[in-house]
Amino acid sequence: MCGVFGIWSHPEAAKLAYLGLHALQHRGQEAAGIVAAGREDARFVRHLGRGLVADVFTEDDLAALGGTHAIGHVRYSTAGGTGTENTQPFSVMTSKGALALAHNGNLVNAKEIRDALEREGAIFSTPGDSEVFVHLLARARAPRLVDRVREAAAQVVGAYTLIVMHDSGMIGVRDPQGFRPLVLGELNGGYVLASETSALELIGAKLIREVKPGEIVSVDQHGVHSERLVHAPDAQPRSCIFELVYFARPDSSIFDTSVYEARVKMGQQLATEQPADADIVVPVPDSGVPAALGFAEASGLPFRHGLLRSHYVGRTFIEPEQSIRHFGVKLKLGPIRAVLEGKRVVVVDDSIVRGTTSRKIVAMLRGAGAKEVHMRISSPPSRYPCFYGIDTPTRAELIAATKSVEEIREFITADSLGYLSESGLHLAAGDPDEERFCNACFTGRYTTGRELIEPRLVQIDGR
Amino acid sequence: MCGVFGIWSHPEAAKLAYLGLHALQHRGQEAAGIVAAGREDARFVRHLGRGLVADVFTEDDLAALGGTHAIGHVRYSTAGGTGTENTQPFSVMTSKGALALAHNGNLVNAKEIRDALEREGAIFSTPGDSEVFVHLLARARAPRLVDRVREAAAQVVGAYTLIVMHDSGMIGVRDPQGFRPLVLGELNGGYVLASETSALELIGAKLIREVKPGEIVSVDQHGVHSERLVHAPDAQPRSCIFELVYFARPDSSIFDTSVYEARVKMGQQLATEQPADADIVVPVPDSGVPAALGFAEASGLPFRHGLLRSHYVGRTFIEPEQSIRHFGVKLKLGPIRAVLEGKRVVVVDDSIVRGTTSRKIVAMLRGAGAKEVHMRISSPPSRYPCFYGIDTPTRAELIAATKSVEEIREFITADSLGYLSESGLHLAAGDPDEERFCNACFTGRYTTGRELIEPRLVQIDGR
Amino acid sequence: MCGVFGIWSHPEAAKLAYLGLHALQHRGQEAAGIVAAGREDARFVRHLGRGLVADVFTEDDLAALGGTHAIGHVRYSTAGGTGTENTQPFSVMTSKGALALAHNGNLVNAKEIRDALEREGAIFSTPGDSEVFVHLLARARAPRLVDRVREAAAQVVGAYTLIVMHDSGMIGVRDPQGFRPLVLGELNGGYVLASETSALELIGAKLIREVKPGEIVSVDQHGVHSERLVHAPDAQPRSCIFELVYFARPDSSIFDTSVYEARVKMGQQLATEQPADADIVVPVPDSGVPAALGFAEASGLPFRHGLLRSHYVGRTFIEPEQSIRHFGVKLKLGPIRAVLEGKRVVVVDDSIVRGTTSRKIVAMLRGAGAKEVHMRISSPPSRYPCFYGIDTPTRAELIAATKSVEEIREFITADSLGYLSESGLHLAAGDPDEERFCNACFTGRYTTGRELIEPRLVQIDGR
Amino acid sequence: MCGVFGIWSHPEAAKLAYLGLHALQHRGQEAAGIVAAGREDARFVRHLGRGLVADVFTEDDLAALGGTHAIGHVRYSTAGGTGTENTQPFSVMTSKGALALAHNGNLVNAKEIRDALEREGAIFSTPGDSEVFVHLLARARAPRLVDRVREAAAQVVGAYTLIVMHDSGMIGVRDPQGFRPLVLGELNGGYVLASETSALELIGAKLIREVKPGEIVSVDQHGVHSERLVHAPDAQPRSCIFELVYFARPDSSIFDTSVYEARVKMGQQLATEQPADADIVVPVPDSGVPAALGFAEASGLPFRHGLLRSHYVGRTFIEPEQSIRHFGVKLKLGPIRAVLEGKRVVVVDDSIVRGTTSRKIVAMLRGAGAKEVHMRISSPPSRYPCFYGIDTPTRAELIAATKSVEEIREFITADSLGYLSESGLHLAAGDPDEERFCNACFTGRYTTGRELIEPRLVQIDGR
Repeated sequence: MCGVFGIWSHPEAAKLAYLGLHALQHRGQEAAGIVAAGREDARFVRHLGRGLVADVFTEDDLAALGGTHAIGHVRYSTAGGTGTENTQPFSVMTSKGALALAHNGNLVNAKEIRDALEREGAIFSTPGDSEVFVHLLARARAPRLVDRVREAAAQVVGAYTLIVMHDSGMIGVRDPQGFRPLVLGELNGGYVLASETSALELIGAKLIREVKPGEIVSVDQHGVHSERLVHAPDAQPRSCIFELVYFARPDSSIFDTSVYEARVKMGQQLATEQPADADIVVPVPDSGVPAALGFAEASGLPFRHGLLRSHYVGRTFIEPEQSIRHFGVKLKLGPIRAVLEGKRVVVVDDSIVRGTTSRKIVAMLRGAGAKEVHMRISSPPSRYPCFYGIDTPTRAELIAATKSVEEIREFITADSLGYLSESGLHLAAGDPDEERFCNACFTGRYTTGRELIEPRLVQIDGR
Repeated sequence: MCGVFGIWSHPEAAKLAYLGLHALQHRGQEAAGIVAAGREDARFVRHLGRGLVADVFTEDDLAALGGTHAIGHVRYSTAGGTGTENTQPFSVMTSKGALALAHNGNLVNAKEIRDALEREGAIFSTPGDSEVFVHLLARARAPRLVDRVREAAAQVVGAYTLIVMHDSGMIGVRDPQGFRPLVLGELNGGYVLASETSALELIGAKLIREVKPGEIVSVDQHGVHSERLVHAPDAQPRSCIFELVYFARPDSSIFDTSVYEARVKMGQQLATEQPADADIVVPVPDSGVPAALGFAEASGLPFRHGLLRSHYVGRTFIEPEQSIRHFGVKLKLGPIRAVLEGKRVVVVDDSIVRGTTSRKIVAMLRGAGAKEVHMRISSPPSRYPCFYGIDTPTRAELIAATKSVEEIREFITADSLGYLSESGLHLAAGDPDEERFCNACFTGRYTTGRELIEPRLVQIDGR
Repeated sequence: MCGVFGIWSHPEAAKLAYLGLHALQHRGQEAAGIVAAGREDARFVRHLGRGLVADVFTEDDLAALGGTHAIGHVRYSTAGGTGTENTQPFSVMTSKGALALAHNGNLVNAKEIRDALEREGAIFSTPGDSEVFVHLLARARAPRLVDRVREAAAQVVGAYTLIVMHDSGMIGVRDPQGFRPLVLGELNGGYVLASETSALELIGAKLIREVKPGEIVSVDQHGVHSERLVHAPDAQPRSCIFELVYFARPDSSIFDTSVYEARVKMGQQLATEQPADADIVVPVPDSGVPAALGFAEASGLPFRHGLLRSHYVGRTFIEPEQSIRHFGVKLKLGPIRAVLEGKRVVVVDDSIVRGTTSRKIVAMLRGAGAKEVHMRISSPPSRYPCFYGIDTPTRAELIAATKSVEEIREFITADSLGYLSESGLHLAAGDPDEERFCNACFTGRYTTGRELIEPRLVQIDGR
Repeated sequence: MCGVFGIWSHPEAAKLAYLGLHALQHRGQEAAGIVAAGREDARFVRHLGRGLVADVFTEDDLAALGGTHAIGHVRYSTAGGTGTENTQPFSVMTSKGALALAHNGNLVNAKEIRDALEREGAIFSTPGDSEVFVHLLARARAPRLVDRVREAAAQVVGAYTLIVMHDSGMIGVRDPQGFRPLVLGELNGGYVLASETSALELIGAKLIREVKPGEIVSVDQHGVHSERLVHAPDAQPRSCIFELVYFARPDSSIFDTSVYEARVKMGQQLATEQPADADIVVPVPDSGVPAALGFAEASGLPFRHGLLRSHYVGRTFIEPEQSIRHFGVKLKLGPIRAVLEGKRVVVVDDSIVRGTTSRKIVAMLRGAGAKEVHMRISSPPSRYPCFYGIDTPTRAELIAATKSVEEIREFITADSLGYLSESGLHLAAGDPDEERFCNACFTGRYTTGRELIEPRLVQIDGR
C-alpha cells in the first residue's frame, strides 16, 4: 500500500508535498520521498528516506529540494520483499527529458514485462513492479507524454494510480478499474493530486473532483485537461472496498463516499445482522471506532471507550526482556478497568487477519474484568490475498482462509463472533447491486484474470 | 505538572521505570529522568534528558542504569521558568548516604526556605522549588529517613507528592491535603509507586491501594510500612479536581475514582445544565471525548467524530511559511466534512484556557460546513491560577478571568457557549458535599493560605 | 576523485570493505557506499550515504549487508556537478543477472554515449559518467562477463579503474593508459582489489601485484585469471603523476613506486633546483611533509614543524561571526611561535591551486614571527584542468594558468617562490625519460585526444 | 587531566569559549561544558555533554548560551571514577549570587573536607573533588570574592588551576606549586584565561603573560588585578614536567617554555645519552615527533615518517570480529613499508605506560620489514602514579614500576631500549638545577606530603 501526492505551481511546493505526505502517512510508514522540479537550475532534485515523513525530511532537506512543483510518495512496503533502499518517486533522465513518477497499486504482469525489457538491455535498480512503468515510458515513442503514458498503460495489467511529473506538466492516472483512489484539488491557482482528500484538507486546497477510473488528467500552465486511457474503454470500475473498510483515513472522502459515514453504516448493518446480548459496545481503536459507534446506535447499547489508544505509539520502543503479558498490545492500548469490570462487552473491529491481535484484545478485556466478550467484525472474513496493492499475508496465514468462524471464535477465545455479510458490506458502502467495488479479498473473485502470477509474501505486521 | 514513578526490587527496574514513565508521559513531555540503585557497585546512576521518554532513553542508557530499584520523573516545565537543564530525579550524596528524590507538585514557601538555606552556605543547582526538599533532608538530624522526611515536610507548605529512594528502601509521601495522586502496587514481590494506575497497568503490576493524603509509605525488603506526617494531623484532604477534569489519563483511577467515568458523568450533568438544540455531538479530541459521550447520551443526540486526531502528532513539524489557515490545529485535528456539513453541532471540550484554540476549532467546524456551533465545556470557567502544581497562565491570560461567558462566546465565535457549574462538577466527581476536592482554579478558594507568594509565569502552550 | 575496493570470498566481507574504504577515505570524503553479495538469499544489498565512511555505516548497516563478497566506493564529488544523491557502487538487475559496479576516473566521451543510449530508451538515474558503463554492460551480448566488459570498454575513452561484481565473480579493470591505480591482494584465500596498498595493509591482506594498464583481472572460486582489453593493445601507459605528488596516501605504493619516497625525492630535487638562504625548513602539513624533509636533507637546513595540524579537523565546525583573521586555516593549522620567531623560513607545499591558502599560510607564518618566508612547491605550476578524474578548478581559477611565477609570489606575499621543474618531477618519480606518466595538468599534453569535450566545473575546495 | 577556558567581555563569548575548548581538546576528550553569563536576563546558562567539543555543542546550543562572558571545561575523566554525568563547569546559586567554576588539577585532601561538609548538611551531586571548592566558596564569609577564594584555597591541598565566574568578574587561580598551567590574554579589550597559549592563538587573542603559581588574577570592567594566595607565601613552585614531555600541545608555550622546542631538546639529549647504531630515526606519531627530530639531528641519522597517523582517528569505529593482527594500532598508524624495509630503525616515543602499545609498534615495524628496532624514550621510566591531576594507572600497571629496563625491552621485543635520564630531562626543560619542576611520576618525590591519601584507579586508555 502506498500514498501519492503531487503539486503543480506553488512557491512552497516541496513543503506542501511534505505536509500532503504527512496527511497520507497512514498509507505507508516504511519510507517517504519527494522529487521537486521547477527550480532555477532546471534540475529535478530528489530526497528519500526510510521512516515517517516527519523524520525523513529536515528543514534543510526541504530547502534543498526547492522548486515550484513536486511529487511525493509514502510506501507501506515494496512489492517483491522488503528492500533496504527507497525507490519512489523515481526520478530519471530520458531522451525526452527528465521524468519523475510515483505509483500506488500493484501490477500483476510486471515480471513478464520486466523480463522482456531486460532482454533488450534494460537495467533495473529496484526489485518492485513500479520501475517497469519508468522503462515503458522511456521507450514509448509518441511525442506527447500523455500518449506515452497511454502506450505504457496499454501493456500493464493490475492496479495503478500514477503521478508523473515532467518539465512542463504533471499527469495523474487511474487504471481502468480504478482500484486505488486519486483526487484533484486546487490551491491558489495551482493544482494538487493526492490519494485522499485528507491531504487536500490539511494544506487548505479545495477539492475539484475525483480522478475517474481510466482517466488521465494533465495539469500544466494552461490548466487541467482530461483524456481517457483508450486501451480499456469499457472496463468495469472496481474500486477497492477494503479502502473503505480499513485503509483510508476516516476523514477522507474517496470513491465519492465518506469513509467515516460508510464505517458507521457498516457498524449499523453489523448490529442488525449480528446482534449481541450485552451491556456496552467497545471499539478497538482506532479503526473500529466508527463501526462500533454505528453498532451501538443500531443496537441501543451504550458506546464506551474500554480500550484507550496511547498517543505516543509510533515511536521505537524498548521492550522488557521478561514477559509482561500482552506487552505489545498494552503499549498501544490501555484497558479502562472501571468501564469494563463486570460488563458483557461487544468489541468491534474492522477485520481479523491472523487472529493473534484479536486474541490478545479478548484476553486484555477479560483481564480488566469483562464478564463476556462478543467480537463483531465490520467486514466479511478475509480469506484471499490481494494482488492489487494491499499487503495481505498469504492465504496460509489468513486465519479465515483455513478456519471456520466458530474455529476462529475459539482461537480468539471470544464468547461469540460475528462478521458482516458481503451483501451487508456493499449495502453500507452504497453499492447495493454489488457492482462498483472489488471484494476479491473476501470472495476470491479477482477482476483482472491475472492474479495468480505473483503470489505475495509480504505480511501486514502484527495483525 | 509532573509524573513520578518508583520501583523497588525487580531485576528489570530501570526498564520498568522507563515503561512506567511512558504511561505517565501525559503528565510531562518536556523532560524525563531515571535514577537506578541496587547495583553491584552500590552507586546511584542517573540518566536525564529533554523530550519524550522514548527519545530520552536508548537501550544502552537503560543497560547503563542497571540495578534493581529505580525512581523516575517526567516534567511538564520547571517552576520558576523554563531552564535549559534537567533536574529530576535529584541524586545526591549526603552524610547519611546516597539519596534520590522525585517531586510532583509545587511549594508555596520555597523562596523563603531557599533564602534561609543559602544564608547558611547551601548551594542550589536548579531554579525550581524541588531542590529545597533535598537540602532539608540532608540537614535533618533524625536517624530514620522517615523521620527526616517528616522533619523536612514540617517546614514546607504546598503540594508535594514525593518518591525518595535511599540505599535500603523507597519512600512515598503525599502532602496532608493530598493535592496530587500517588498509588501503590505490587509486581512479583516487589513494590511500585506511581502517579496514576495507568503506569501499574502497563507494566502488569497489581494495584494495592492509593497512598493517602498525609501518609508516608515505606517500602523495603521487609515489605510495606505506613506512617502519618504528624505536622498536619487533621488537615482536610483537598485533591485537585482538575486532575479528573483534564490532567489524568482517562484509563487511570485516582482519588479512588475512575477518571473516564467521572468525565462521562460531567458530560451527562453538562447536558442537563446546558442543553442545546442541535443535530450531533462532537468531541474535541482527545480530552473532550468522554464528556461528549456523556452529553450525547443524556441529550439523546447522536455522538459523531467530527474532528479526527492525527496519530503522528507529537513529532517536530516543519511549518509552511505562507499561512495555511489554522495550520497548527489542522495538523493535529482533521475535520470530517461528511459528518459536519449542514449540521447543528454541539462541540464538547473539557476547559477553555486562553480561548484561541476554541476559536480555531469553531472556525474549523464552520469551514467544514457546520451550520451552527454550540460549545459546551465540562468544567466551570477557569478564572484563577494554580499554585499547587498545574501550570496555568497568569490571570491576565485566562480568558475567563477577564471576560464574561457571553464575551467568551463572542470571542470564540460560537452560536452558544455553556459551562458546567461548580456544584455540577463536584456532583459528577462523586463529591456532592464539595469537601473532598480543591477547586481553586475555578473559585479562587485556595486552601493553604500561602498562595500569593509566588505568582506563576509559566504558561500552558497553545491552550 | 574516488576510491574503489572489492573483496571476494571472506566471511566478514562487508566489514572489511568498510575498513578498506576507511583506508581510502582521502580519495573521497563526500559519500561512501558498499554492495554486498554472496548472501543466503542471493540478493545484492546496497547501503549508501553522504559523508565519511565512519559516519555512513553503523554496525547494524554492516550486519544488514551481510554476504561473503563486497565492493565499495568513496566519492570526492560527482562528475557533472554535486548531486544530492549517492550513486556508487551501482547495483542493478540485468537479463544476465545482478551486477554491481564501482568506478574511479572520468570518461571524456560519456555525453555522446549517453545521448545515444537515451535515444534507444535507456533511462539514467544519475548525472555522472559512471552509469554509462552499467548500460553498456547490460546491452553487451557476449556470454562471458569479461567479454561484455571488453565490449563496453571498447566504446569509452578516458580514465577508468573499475570493479565489477556479479553472482559468480569479481572483475578489476584498468584503462589502457592506466591513469588510476589498482592493486590486487590476498587474504585468507580470498581476493582483494583496492585503489591503493594502504587498504590492503589495514585489513592485513598481502599484496600480490598491481593490476596493469589495460588488464582485466577476474577473481572467482577458481582463483585469479588475467586477460587484456583488446581494443587498445598498444596504448602507451600514462599513469597520473599527480597521484604521486598529492593524491595518494604516503604509506601506499602505487604504480610500483613508494609514494612517500617519491615525495622525499621531489623535495631533494627541489632543493637542488630552487635553493633558499634560510634558517629552517617548515612543511605545510600534511601533504608537504615528505618533500620538506627531502628539501631539508638536501639543503642541510634544519627541518622544523612550524605549523601544527589539528587532529580534530574533519568535523563540522561552528565558525565565529566576527572575523578572526584566517580562521579557517587556523582551525586546521596552528603556528608554533617559538619555532618561527625571528627565523628565515622555507615553507614547502606540494602544489598551489588558487593561491588563497598559500597566501594565508604566508601571513600566518609572518604573524607568528617569521622574518622571511620562502615558498617552495614540489611540483611544476598547475596550469591545466584534468579530464581524467582529478577534480581541479577551471583554468580561469588556476592561479598559474593566468599569472607568472613572480606574480604568484607577489599574490601570496612570499619573499621568494620556487617550483620543481617538469623534468625534475619525472626524475624524482623514477621516470627520467618522461614516458610513464601523464603530466597534462602541468603541461596541457593530454593523451587521449578527447579532452575538450566536457570542461569540468567542479572545484577543489579551499585550495 | 582537564582544560579550562574563560573569556570576559566579548559579544561572541560563548562561541569563543567553544573554539578555545577546541584548542584544548587534547587535555580532555570525555566531556565538555560551557557556562555563559552577562545575558540580558542576568541568568547563568550552562550546556554540558559527553564527547568532543565539536559534537557536544550545536549552533543552537551556542546561541542559547548567549551572553558576553563565559567559562568552559574539557574533561579527561573524573577523579573518583568515570561517572555517567558531566559536571563542569559547575554553575550554582549561593547567598552571594550566582557562581560558575572550572577546575583543572586534583586535590589530595578532598575526601576529608567532603566528609566534614556532609556532616554539616552539605549535599554533593558529583563524585569528584572539584565540587568541594564550590561548597567552600559558598560557605566562605568574606565580602570580596577574591578573599572567599583565598579562604577556600587555604583549606585544600593539591593541584588546582581554577577559573571562577561571578556576576561582575572572572577570577583565575593557580595553586602555590603551580602544578597546572594557566595563561592570561587579551582580545578586543576583553580578557581571556586558558590552560595553554594554543587557545589564545586560535581565537586571535594576544598573550599577556602566564598566571603565576600562587597568584589570583581578577578580571572585570576595571581591567586586570593581581593578588597572592596568602596561605602559602613561600611555597616552592613545582610545575608538572610531564606537561612538557607529553600532555601539552606542541604549539603551546607553558611555564614560559616552548613545548615543541623542549621536546626537540629532550630528543637531542636522548641521542647523546642513548645512541643507537641504526639507519633511520622514526617517530611514534604524534607525541614522539619533536623528540625523534631532535634525536635525528643530534645523531646525524635521517629522520623518516615510518609510521603514518590516520587523519580520521577519533571517530567511533566498528571493529572486525575476526582478528586482524594489531587492528587497533593499525587503524591509528599505518607503517610505510618502503621506508622501513631492510632498515635498522630507531623509534622514538615520549613515554611507556603499560608497554602494550610499544610492543605492538615494534611488531608492526618488524612486520613492515625493519631489520632492527631500537626504542628510545624521551623521558625517564614512569614508575609512580600522579596525585596532581594526570590520570596514570596504578603502580601495578606501570610497567616500569615492576620491571627493569632490560625486562621492558624484552617485553616490547625491541633490539635495544633506552630512556632519557632525570637530569637530562630537567636539562632539556631548561631546569638544570632540578628545582622548578615536579617529577614525582618518575621519582616518587611528591611535593605536597599528602599524596598517599587517595590512590588513583583511573587508567590511561590503551597506553
